[in-house]
Amino acid sequence: MSLDRSWVESANEAETDFPLNNLPYGVFSTPGEAPRCGVAIGDMILDVAALERAGIIALRGGPLLQSATWNPLMTAGTEAWAALRSRLRELLAEGASQSEALRAHLVSQAEARMHLPFTVAEFTDFYASRHHAANVGTMFRGAENALPPNWLSMPIGYNGRASSVVVSGTEIRRPWGQIKGPDDALPRFAPSERFDFELEMGAILGQPSNGPLSVAKADAMIFGYVLLNDWSARDIQAWEYQPLGPFQAKATATSISPWIVTAAALAPFRTSTPERERELLPYLQEPGPMLYDIDLEVELAPEWAGPVTIARTNYREMYYSAAQQLAHHTTSGCPMRVGDLLGSGTISGPARESRGALLELSWGGKEPIAVGDQTRSFIEDGDTLRFRGHARGDGYRVGFGECTGKVLPALDDPYKAHC
Amino acid sequence: MSLDRSWVESANEAETDFPLNNLPYGVFSTPGEAPRCGVAIGDMILDVAALERAGIIALRGGPLLQSATWNPLMTAGTEAWAALRSRLRELLAEGASQSEALRAHLVSQAEARMHLPFTVAEFTDFYASRHHAANVGTMFRGAENALPPNWLSMPIGYNGRASSVVVSGTEIRRPWGQIKGPDDALPRFAPSERFDFELEMGAILGQPSNGPLSVAKADAMIFGYVLLNDWSARDIQAWEYQPLGPFQAKATATSISPWIVTAAALAPFRTSTPERERELLPYLQEPGPMLYDIDLEVELAPEWAGPVTIARTNYREMYYSAAQQLAHHTTSGCPMRVGDLLGSGTISGPARESRGALLELSWGGKEPIAVGDQTRSFIEDGDTLRFRGHARGDGYRVGFGECTGKVLPALDDPYKAHC
Repeated sequence: MSLDRSWVESANEAETDFPLNNLPYGVFSTPGEAPRCGVAIGDMILDVAALERAGIIALRGGPLLQSATWNPLMTAGTEAWAALRSRLRELLAEGASQSEALRAHLVSQAEARMHLPFTVAEFTDFYASRHHAANVGTMFRGAENALPPNWLSMPIGYNGRASSVVVSGTEIRRPWGQIKGPDDALPRFAPSERFDFELEMGAILGQPSNGPLSVAKADAMIFGYVLLNDWSARDIQAWEYQPLGPFQAKATATSISPWIVTAAALAPFRTSTPERERELLPYLQEPGPMLYDIDLEVELAPEWAGPVTIARTNYREMYYSAAQQLAHHTTSGCPMRVGDLLGSGTISGPARESRGALLELSWGGKEPIAVGDQTRSFIEDGDTLRFRGHARGDGYRVGFGECTGKVLPALDDPYKAHC
Repeated sequence: MSLDRSWVESANEAETDFPLNNLPYGVFSTPGEAPRCGVAIGDMILDVAALERAGIIALRGGPLLQSATWNPLMTAGTEAWAALRSRLRELLAEGASQSEALRAHLVSQAEARMHLPFTVAEFTDFYASRHHAANVGTMFRGAENALPPNWLSMPIGYNGRASSVVVSGTEIRRPWGQIKGPDDALPRFAPSERFDFELEMGAILGQPSNGPLSVAKADAMIFGYVLLNDWSARDIQAWEYQPLGPFQAKATATSISPWIVTAAALAPFRTSTPERERELLPYLQEPGPMLYDIDLEVELAPEWAGPVTIARTNYREMYYSAAQQLAHHTTSGCPMRVGDLLGSGTISGPARESRGALLELSWGGKEPIAVGDQTRSFIEDGDTLRFRGHARGDGYRVGFGECTGKVLPALDDPYKAHC
């Protein structure tokens, strides 16, 4: 786990998210030019769409990089994934013979706008961090009934809404919804007053399936990972979620970071899920370490004040890995598709400051947290949330960039503009 | 509401589903030829893809009928919807001048294979029939707590899995899943023993939206309707559904009938939702009749015995219309897309024989129903379920064709084939 050096100097700095070891995949545009596939290296983006057109990158079954989405490469399969990664490492390594020719295809990240890196087929969200489930369960059902009876037997998940997935930087409009307070006889239709973030990782499926998958096979289908913020309206959720689960509370938006960090880049950081408290059924047992050691942090920046880090945790806190979640997802024969996105569920650690949502950090609003000289129970208008994530090697890190979103005030009358 | 006569003689018979009044949209193929767009008329299919290529059908912004899916026409908007329907009525009406030329583009339904008529963007399923919700609630929570507190305030819905939607006729494999009996300490992984159908209507969105929709606007976005069978594994559902709703229990398959019956064809059969038991919030109130009077029936055919009708009900039994469901779906700002499919939820009437699922018909298995000289609590291997639906005019009907599926035995070892 040491730095692999690149001729792109900024890729060799200890604090870059994008050394040669990483090589994450995004879709970017520059003023006047259409979105296209690119690879982050240091503070630059390599225009791989142009390199494929120039014949410098040639993939079997190609062209695969001309569609402003990474789905064609994913669809091409694991050999294509390995071939592209290998070619990129060759082209970008220190001493590469073609470095001068390639410089013309480097674009500064500062000048680029990022887009969704893949076409989201369907979106599933899980509830698979032990501490998050216990915290939320304690708040809603008391400490003795904190974990639902099924929780230690399966990764609990629900289908989300793919149409609501947006790229980092997209502004998020506070939603309206049906809200009923504990003392209200009937609900009212109003803007959410308990709007929240959820710190998650997203796993992206790069291959389809049409029947039950083992955990090993599921793991091999995962193309890469992103940071994911599943924006959640807790007051809408509390009233709507029985008996069929969250619906509009989770449908406003889900933000993802713009760079797909591949499973290949994360391989050196594999780690095991925690010890099982209940033996899993064989179909959920893991043949090896399936989680990753990725430090995660959440920063909140009020509109007129500087950012404050409000949570730090790690992806290894998950009780179930993405591979286990995917295996469970297919038990019924559910067909999976290239571009399916699986949210890990909120990632919380054991300490108060390692909780991945304001609901937990402020204990349902009862214990507001300090944010500089302000306090927060839930998100206020104008707040920007920023997630960061890093797997750390010796003197380098494999980072995810950022997953940010600013929350705008609710519309005065949501029906004025649209009907 | 009288029959409009066609020069296609079989379209004038009282018992056809497809008179000139209907003109539903499907995708069909014949041996050796690729799937293409067609319109049902009597016992024939008009090859409208060929007619568009020949210039006999010319739509603004076209071609719109060349993609083996009706999504391009839907995307083109309501003027295109009206223009095509008007042109088809002209071409197929009794006395039409071009009838001889058109005969060459008629294909017998008996010789055609049907495909999914549209690309399903996302699938949402609701729980919006009063009798179904009360029946299921009584079984699970007792008569006093039958309806969840939110039920009379909003159409309860959850996101399903678009990848699992299949066309009528597709065989359905009994799923495996985690099952825990009431007396079991822990779950086991086994084939579902309580596999069920759900009689539903599906509404297909023909236009996108990006903010809260009024009920009137939502209604205008619905392109058409299909019969829908949301296959459900009750034993998997009972163990998995708390707290985030059904997941693998509903992910094996959802079958739809192959013909999209347009909202335009159903307009003469509009009817109002039942009287409100609790006043709805303004955003859910309907400006006019938003349901349809559509007789529905379910037939069960055991593998080695004739079919028996086991349920009859009507779409007007819904407490919430598809337009209300769609309006609620958008409250949070959830973006909707062309090709989104909204399942009504199981449609049950007040009588025992008007219940739209075996769970209700057999009262959770406690009161098995007679099927010829057999009995059924849940579906047995080899059973074929067949739904039919008709709106009835004077001497004619607007029908949906059939939504059928045969249930195959579970795989011996689901991991043998796939991992």
